[in-house]
Amino acid sequence: MAWIAVDWGSSSLRGARFDDAGAVLEERAFARGILTVPKGEFGAVFNQLFGDWMAPSDARCLISGMAGSQQGWIEAPYCACSANLDDVAARLAWVEPGRIAIVPGLSCEHTGVPDVMRGEETQVFGALRLLDIDAGIFVLPGTHSKWVRVQGGRIESFETLMTGEFYALLRQHSILARSLPPNDAELVDTAFDAGIAHALRSPGLLQAAFSVRTLSLFDRLRLNERPSYLSGLVIGEELRTRQLKGDEQVVVIGAEVLTKRYERALAQRDVRVRSIGAQATWNGLFSIATRIRA
Amino acid sequence: MAWIAVDWGSSSLRGARFDDAGAVLEERAFARGILTVPKGEFGAVFNQLFGDWMAPSDARCLISGMAGSQQGWIEAPYCACSANLDDVAARLAWVEPGRIAIVPGLSCEHTGVPDVMRGEETQVFGALRLLDIDAGIFVLPGTHSKWVRVQGGRIESFETLMTGEFYALLRQHSILARSLPPNDAELVDTAFDAGIAHALRSPGLLQAAFSVRTLSLFDRLRLNERPSYLSGLVIGEELRTRQLKGDEQVVVIGAEVLTKRYERALAQRDVRVRSIGAQATWNGLFSIATRIRA
Repeated sequence: MAWIAVDWGSSSLRGARFDDAGAVLEERAFARGILTVPKGEFGAVFNQLFGDWMAPSDARCLISGMAGSQQGWIEAPYCACSANLDDVAARLAWVEPGRIAIVPGLSCEHTGVPDVMRGEETQVFGALRLLDIDAGIFVLPGTHSKWVRVQGGRIESFETLMTGEFYALLRQHSILARSLPPNDAELVDTAFDAGIAHALRSPGLLQAAFSVRTLSLFDRLRLNERPSYLSGLVIGEELRTRQLKGDEQVVVIGAEVLTKRYERALAQRDVRVRSIGAQATWNGLFSIATRIRA
Repeated sequence: MAWIAVDWGSSSLRGARFDDAGAVLEERAFARGILTVPKGEFGAVFNQLFGDWMAPSDARCLISGMAGSQQGWIEAPYCACSANLDDVAARLAWVEPGRIAIVPGLSCEHTGVPDVMRGEETQVFGALRLLDIDAGIFVLPGTHSKWVRVQGGRIESFETLMTGEFYALLRQHSILARSLPPNDAELVDTAFDAGIAHALRSPGLLQAAFSVRTLSLFDRLRLNERPSYLSGLVIGEELRTRQLKGDEQVVVIGAEVLTKRYERALAQRDVRVRSIGAQATWNGLFSIATRIRA
């Protein structure tokens, strides 16, 4: 069988072709996130970019990410937690029955308020396969960071924190922007660590964020250190609110530029960390594909 | 003696003329905040707008607010906490000795990080005079909210929280803006209360803020309710991190549109509240003026 995996997010589109054991034979990437695709043209874009891979009559493609949202190709309704690989495989949204399917996002509920993710569930399943584990705490840093708890191969619950977005808002649009250089340079470790430490001992970000201004005003933070300090503040705020036991291992999934920061930040909370990169998505899609009851 | 008080902030300029007992005889307001005044032209602007009031040879003017900042008329260096009326009166920055002076801002330090305010100290001293008290917790809501603790007539410490600014950032520039109507309408009390309640039970705003998106996605929050809910979230986050005893009284100083929200929010924490409006500044400047050793 010809296995194709596609990661179709808001701003990017990637595809991979597997062999039967789940090894990647070939990859492609395009700047064709769903926000660039008009409603009704998803099929055409897909055929143009992956039509050759889908030529074999037994080809099957599994897609994860925002392609399954209301603004995507077809809507794949959220699957309620807890959910394992079989639950997700049973709730696929089939674009073409037996040939092209979209992985549903997950939803869960905390004190009467829903939370959602779309795409990250696939990365978590991929991490389970890559690390050959069936439980743990998984962090997917980003614009909207996800913290995911897995037990016995089931995603039990998760939480979204708008860490990356708060960084960008404060960096670009707040009064703090006046104290910051126009561009982020290399991370300054000591300033990043100081931001983490201050956030961890602060009651909350509304108060901690103002320290960028006052430390600048009193010349206690150099211009080139300030973006790193602010990055430490928001990531530190994310970690401050996480309940972590000292003996728990956290798996960070994402691009190295981000996972490195989380490793460094989590060290201040004495937490053991393992990091996994972009291969998590392909592994997750392969794992889900193996559970499809044809 | 002819007493003049001026409140010269970033975006507005107000003046008042007092009688000897501190009663206001006349007020003026102009859209001439310090951000509109080029360096070196503060004296000319002041003379143009208040020259007639300053004509008597014994006229004396006291100015509070950002006019004393680096970007203002002359810099009035921060006075370190704790500070009482006498400390502030002794640290005035005199533009014209014996005639025109600027009130210094205050600074304090928490776990190695400085905090500052400029103008709010005067409002707090005014509140002490208006309420005839010498201790309490004072809240000055706004773009950057201040929480101020007073003991025996001394401002002991204070904290800045970027509440109003975070609201504006999330309202205008975040992904949440897509779920919100273009303009804020009347406050919807039930939605505001729900935002307060959710923030109070949340670990932090990074996580709580995402509920605007998910509650909208699941149609659990009407379009016109969403700005009120978001306002409740950020004010609730401010209150979540305040250590308040049930028997403490909090004095909220500010415009009624804001103090009403804080009264409503603090009720969820069972705290008694009194509110004071714009007259706090004039009373504070009068109190400071009476302590000047000529």
